[in-house]
Amino acid sequence: MKQEKTYKDAGFGGQVPRGRNPALIVIDLSYGFTDAIYPTASEASAQIAVTNSLIAAARLRSIPVIFTVISFNKSELDVLPWLKKATGMKALEDGSRLVEIDDRLDREPTDAVFVKKGASAFFGTNLASQLAGAGVNTVVVAGATTSGCIRASAVDAVQSGFNVLVAADACVDRAQPPHEAALYDIQQKYGDVVSSAEIIQYFKSL
Amino acid sequence: MKQEKTYKDAGFGGQVPRGRNPALIVIDLSYGFTDAIYPTASEASAQIAVTNSLIAAARLRSIPVIFTVISFNKSELDVLPWLKKATGMKALEDGSRLVEIDDRLDREPTDAVFVKKGASAFFGTNLASQLAGAGVNTVVVAGATTSGCIRASAVDAVQSGFNVLVAADACVDRAQPPHEAALYDIQQKYGDVVSSAEIIQYFKSL
Amino acid sequence: MKQEKTYKDAGFGGQVPRGRNPALIVIDLSYGFTDAIYPTASEASAQIAVTNSLIAAARLRSIPVIFTVISFNKSELDVLPWLKKATGMKALEDGSRLVEIDDRLDREPTDAVFVKKGASAFFGTNLASQLAGAGVNTVVVAGATTSGCIRASAVDAVQSGFNVLVAADACVDRAQPPHEAALYDIQQKYGDVVSSAEIIQYFKSL
Amino acid sequence: MKQEKTYKDAGFGGQVPRGRNPALIVIDLSYGFTDAIYPTASEASAQIAVTNSLIAAARLRSIPVIFTVISFNKSELDVLPWLKKATGMKALEDGSRLVEIDDRLDREPTDAVFVKKGASAFFGTNLASQLAGAGVNTVVVAGATTSGCIRASAVDAVQSGFNVLVAADACVDRAQPPHEAALYDIQQKYGDVVSSAEIIQYFKSL
Repeated sequence: MKQEKTYKDAGFGGQVPRGRNPALIVIDLSYGFTDAIYPTASEASAQIAVTNSLIAAARLRSIPVIFTVISFNKSELDVLPWLKKATGMKALEDGSRLVEIDDRLDREPTDAVFVKKGASAFFGTNLASQLAGAGVNTVVVAGATTSGCIRASAVDAVQSGFNVLVAADACVDRAQPPHEAALYDIQQKYGDVVSSAEIIQYFKSL
Repeated sequence: MKQEKTYKDAGFGGQVPRGRNPALIVIDLSYGFTDAIYPTASEASAQIAVTNSLIAAARLRSIPVIFTVISFNKSELDVLPWLKKATGMKALEDGSRLVEIDDRLDREPTDAVFVKKGASAFFGTNLASQLAGAGVNTVVVAGATTSGCIRASAVDAVQSGFNVLVAADACVDRAQPPHEAALYDIQQKYGDVVSSAEIIQYFKSL
Repeated sequence: MKQEKTYKDAGFGGQVPRGRNPALIVIDLSYGFTDAIYPTASEASAQIAVTNSLIAAARLRSIPVIFTVISFNKSELDVLPWLKKATGMKALEDGSRLVEIDDRLDREPTDAVFVKKGASAFFGTNLASQLAGAGVNTVVVAGATTSGCIRASAVDAVQSGFNVLVAADACVDRAQPPHEAALYDIQQKYGDVVSSAEIIQYFKSL
Repeated sequence: MKQEKTYKDAGFGGQVPRGRNPALIVIDLSYGFTDAIYPTASEASAQIAVTNSLIAAARLRSIPVIFTVISFNKSELDVLPWLKKATGMKALEDGSRLVEIDDRLDREPTDAVFVKKGASAFFGTNLASQLAGAGVNTVVVAGATTSGCIRASAVDAVQSGFNVLVAADACVDRAQPPHEAALYDIQQKYGDVVSSAEIIQYFKSL
């Protein structure tokens, strides 16, 4: 209650504009995050199905569908500080099955795939340039994990000059409290957290 | 319990190396975040006192002390998407008292001050270059707010190639649940969340 | 002759699209580059007059006019590697007259000013985000110096996803051969090098 | 003569420090730049031989050897503004022989390879983070082309906080005047332009 008032008084939680030129960014739905045989992964079947419905809606309006994966070459494994803290991420090695995008996703060969080396889809990649070059003004985010790469990508998307929408039911995480805390922070400060149904409606309206 | 095991199995929560060349980054302790007369601010007296003890320890070892502030010029107010979501941040205008660093901090005229336009101290600033140029390998973070700029800066610091330590008792936020959720995520994935006493001990050991 | 054919065969020298939403970026026309009493500066009266004609044309169409300056705080002077190579740039200190934008320029208080720490207007600044947030797709560059900051900014502008036009007669340099070599490279590889008259015509057409 | 004096007075042409932890960056020596059957390429046999001597010297001191290639996916071909100006670069498609690193180079499987989408090895890549994480302070640049990607990478390296050395006889370009103009500008403003013999001596001294 008090927190709600504090945040409202601080001017958070506004509604972001839905631009005419969105892009759909599907974050890190490679087997290392979607196949529960790997300790870094979670059960993600439901979110993959929802993401496919977003992808289908995007195709109908020729909205760009962009994928990201985390993948490391050997020279990075002992060098990047992130891999000293999050040592499990070292399993995401170039050429391994963990860095292959889950085959259940309706990906097309012409979709862009950005390889990243950290949490954010924008950090150390050319994604912001590609979006600017394509005249994109609004970014819809889905994928894994909510409290990790989704959140970091949402923060960087709005910092990069794009309106941000996060499709809550298309976001997967390893545990519920961090998932919910991340969606709360995003909704308050960085982008609108909405249902995939609302995103599909928005895409259809274009 | 289950979450703890899931995170441990995923290889999170490692201890990051304490390098020989740290820097102390004091995030956004301007009046807009520290003087509770402003709706964007929180009571921060305790954290400012703790930050000053970190600054004092840094001075003894000639460790760089770097400040950041958020400050916008008029041309940005209607343009940056972040200010459509977090409309309260528009109050942080160039020249206003809200963007002045709190005078209670033991700042020296030669300390660097980086002006930023979003949550992360690294985004859209020259901070990573300054750290690389100074041979810094480890970044200690303090300031405001834990779930906002501290967290975003910690994520970007480790992505930028630096080990990250966050001084928990030097971090202030508007509400306790986001503060704790942010420290949890940082400790698991991006940097070590420690006490200021431990940071001071580390600085003394150099 | 041979060089022309080599470059044409390599597929350089194309014409870049003129977008509907340009911005005018005026690079580093502070006294440190425009007042010949400083060793870092050149005689720039003619280029300032031309730049003012570009600014006037931009105002008529509400095209954003953005300025950049190089300015260093004391903590940067001994740290940034650039200042070990280009030691003369150390004179561009915060608060000095060298970092003030030349008063002969028709600047308005609401124009954005980006402070940079290197050659490129985009490096270590929030400029790309501001342009993306404003829906800009084409960047017109003028200012100083052609072979230094103009060229670096043109390269980064096109890398950042924006079409680039350089107003040749609004660009000033310390010597003619580097000025011409830079314009040649830009015209071949990064953006269209045109006259200010052509830019004004383009602005009027919007 | 006059130009020399102007540049000297402006404080250019300083000597950059040679740090204890260098890295060797081999820029864009893929077949699209080294096999003259492609219109984007130049005869590069001599420079490849020289680069191999730099690589050999780096291996003796466990100095990181890093390669870059330009390579585009289909979604980028119609979107990136650079490919509208430098249309010949569109031939550098993912999976084509043009984006394979020339087999004559003494590359090892553990060497990092950064894929880039523009002129600079740093732009839109994780290279600066990898260098910071590895504690690198000095960057040695070789490859193709001098006036394009070498120069842009040298500018970004020094902007990113690293001292820059360019091995002149390991740099190849399509024509002599732009090659020389680029080396002149680099030597004056961004890094030391030296012979590979001097680089090898420097590596040996470590």
